[in-house]
Amino acid sequence: MAIVTLLTDSGESDHYVAAIKARIISINPGVRVEDISHKIKPNDIGHAAFVLRAVFRDFPKGTVHLVGVDSVGNKGDLPIALQLEDHFFVGSDNGLFGLISEKTHQNLIALNSINTISTTFPERDIFAPAAVKLASGVSLSDLGKPLSVFKKMIDRQVKATKKQITGSVVRVDSFGNLITNIPKEAFDILSKSKVYTIQFGGEKFRRIHTEYNQVDHGECFILFNSMATLEIGIYKGNASELLGLTYDSVVNIIFEE
Amino acid sequence: MAIVTLLTDSGESDHYVAAIKARIISINPGVRVEDISHKIKPNDIGHAAFVLRAVFRDFPKGTVHLVGVDSVGNKGDLPIALQLEDHFFVGSDNGLFGLISEKTHQNLIALNSINTISTTFPERDIFAPAAVKLASGVSLSDLGKPLSVFKKMIDRQVKATKKQITGSVVRVDSFGNLITNIPKEAFDILSKSKVYTIQFGGEKFRRIHTEYNQVDHGECFILFNSMATLEIGIYKGNASELLGLTYDSVVNIIFEE
Amino acid sequence: MAIVTLLTDSGESDHYVAAIKARIISINPGVRVEDISHKIKPNDIGHAAFVLRAVFRDFPKGTVHLVGVDSVGNKGDLPIALQLEDHFFVGSDNGLFGLISEKTHQNLIALNSINTISTTFPERDIFAPAAVKLASGVSLSDLGKPLSVFKKMIDRQVKATKKQITGSVVRVDSFGNLITNIPKEAFDILSKSKVYTIQFGGEKFRRIHTEYNQVDHGECFILFNSMATLEIGIYKGNASELLGLTYDSVVNIIFEE
Repeated sequence: MAIVTLLTDSGESDHYVAAIKARIISINPGVRVEDISHKIKPNDIGHAAFVLRAVFRDFPKGTVHLVGVDSVGNKGDLPIALQLEDHFFVGSDNGLFGLISEKTHQNLIALNSINTISTTFPERDIFAPAAVKLASGVSLSDLGKPLSVFKKMIDRQVKATKKQITGSVVRVDSFGNLITNIPKEAFDILSKSKVYTIQFGGEKFRRIHTEYNQVDHGECFILFNSMATLEIGIYKGNASELLGLTYDSVVNIIFEE
Repeated sequence: MAIVTLLTDSGESDHYVAAIKARIISINPGVRVEDISHKIKPNDIGHAAFVLRAVFRDFPKGTVHLVGVDSVGNKGDLPIALQLEDHFFVGSDNGLFGLISEKTHQNLIALNSINTISTTFPERDIFAPAAVKLASGVSLSDLGKPLSVFKKMIDRQVKATKKQITGSVVRVDSFGNLITNIPKEAFDILSKSKVYTIQFGGEKFRRIHTEYNQVDHGECFILFNSMATLEIGIYKGNASELLGLTYDSVVNIIFEE
Repeated sequence: MAIVTLLTDSGESDHYVAAIKARIISINPGVRVEDISHKIKPNDIGHAAFVLRAVFRDFPKGTVHLVGVDSVGNKGDLPIALQLEDHFFVGSDNGLFGLISEKTHQNLIALNSINTISTTFPERDIFAPAAVKLASGVSLSDLGKPLSVFKKMIDRQVKATKKQITGSVVRVDSFGNLITNIPKEAFDILSKSKVYTIQFGGEKFRRIHTEYNQVDHGECFILFNSMATLEIGIYKGNASELLGLTYDSVVNIIFEE
């Protein structure tokens, strides 16, 4: 039996998360449920996509990821279920799922398209039952009418040339670390035989570290993190506060021969 | 084996929740434990009762709900266990359980009445062992001496006449949505063949929606939510902040022939 | 199969906690995982040690406690695993484990000492696999090279004489209660046949209570809590705010013949 993970912006001061879990338990108590997070900023698709993209592949193939962020979506957003990179995803077609992978989906259906119900709580009444079915081995194609495409938003792109990589901060984590979208892969290729300068805010650095503790307390570290993207922080400090950088701040790596 | 749910105001920065879970696991590791919330505002019986009332029936019958909010209670408040609507509840007789249902309880006993212990941590030392016993199938009557009544507070009442329904905001959720105590049932009966105006703060509305996304971003929606009570919000915004309404704010529905 | 508990300062707005759980599930889905807390103040070893010390013994012997607080540690801090009071602990040798018990450890090894890997996410890549092995019954000695000692910080000491006990506040919990390091055992011995005065801030008290509700709303209570240490609070109020006391505030008990 597969696991169902939950990712929502519900917070934990209300009954919403418990209602989703109770629905899953009531349908099939054998399904294991694991929280990813319920602290996504309200309606923040970008935040949710960042977290989901960072962690879904760590779960076993076949895991079902129920996403309840901006679930109501905009008028016309359908509830959908898809198979992507051998994982299942259930949620609203509001653009979030288009931000978590570059790969083509393996299967895609519209939920609530057979025996349509009306509800103000789709996570509990549409997504949870579908997630339980998928976790129990029901074929995705049996859950609704096939769709050909789902919404793909344009994510902020990294620009890379032989002279420069331009990226930006895509997440400020709870420690104040600034996580960028600059991939190690691009850096490794473009930096060969070159001197590089990393530039952000008013700062310039010429060294990339390999571990968080290679600088002294209060000093800036720059490294490629466990997601293989460039990350900037202050050792035992809050980089976002101290450097005045935030979501969308620009980060450049400039190469010289 | 039944599930034990946990609802407390302990927060998650201390060891209190883990201590309750550890006690349950130590007595019977086969008992499944699910959190409802540990973010209830300290000692806030109203908040806790709202959340519990909203979700307990979604769990399977026989679920044991351990409530640790204002557990110490006032002098004279006993630890109790009761069966109500085919669910079990364990906690302090501080009035909370009187706010979650209109139905008559099926069974009621005083905990810690046989082999009385003294403790400053009743959730771990009295409620958890009792909850495990109930989840394991021990009869409620075996857990303590029978009681005939438990505390019933007077909850704020909705007033309904042919001309007007007067209710109030009973919960502001994490999105800033204003959840009232006005039941859909009363509205459906009283609004037949009538024009209605919904009035709150300085606002007046003449439409009730059926889904959250039937208004534009930043506009007000009013609908009957998944608990079948009237709810007011701002689509993609925080109604409590934007409308200046809060817990106890009055909401009227006025009928004209 | 033993349980693995998690204690981190990761917060719950990112993917870090889910990544640790996903790694555990991927290696052995039969291992039960329970959160102690993910709300430890960033890098706050004192806070983490307080919570862990307060609750680990409530879990069954053989439980594996994975601690991810200041995991990167300072240069030279090794990832370690130890057996202490019949429980297992996995984390960084940054001094935290030296604060949770007075007893001598039973076994101690350096993790990542055989088949060393390099990672910026040791909780997921080093601690989690080790924790799963321990929970699955693998011998601690098989996980790495033996160590003889781990870091022991000097914790703030209680001073006790026949005339006075001097302690301090070691934790302000989410209710604002002030938990001190003054042990009931010392008080019981030194207070025999003596009149005592408890003094903190500008306050003096001559009574110790046995339950939280022995004073009226808004009044101060002083009792020995479930950890058998002196605790000060305001009944239905926040003592830290109202009395102006905080972490490290001094609390004295003065004895007179």
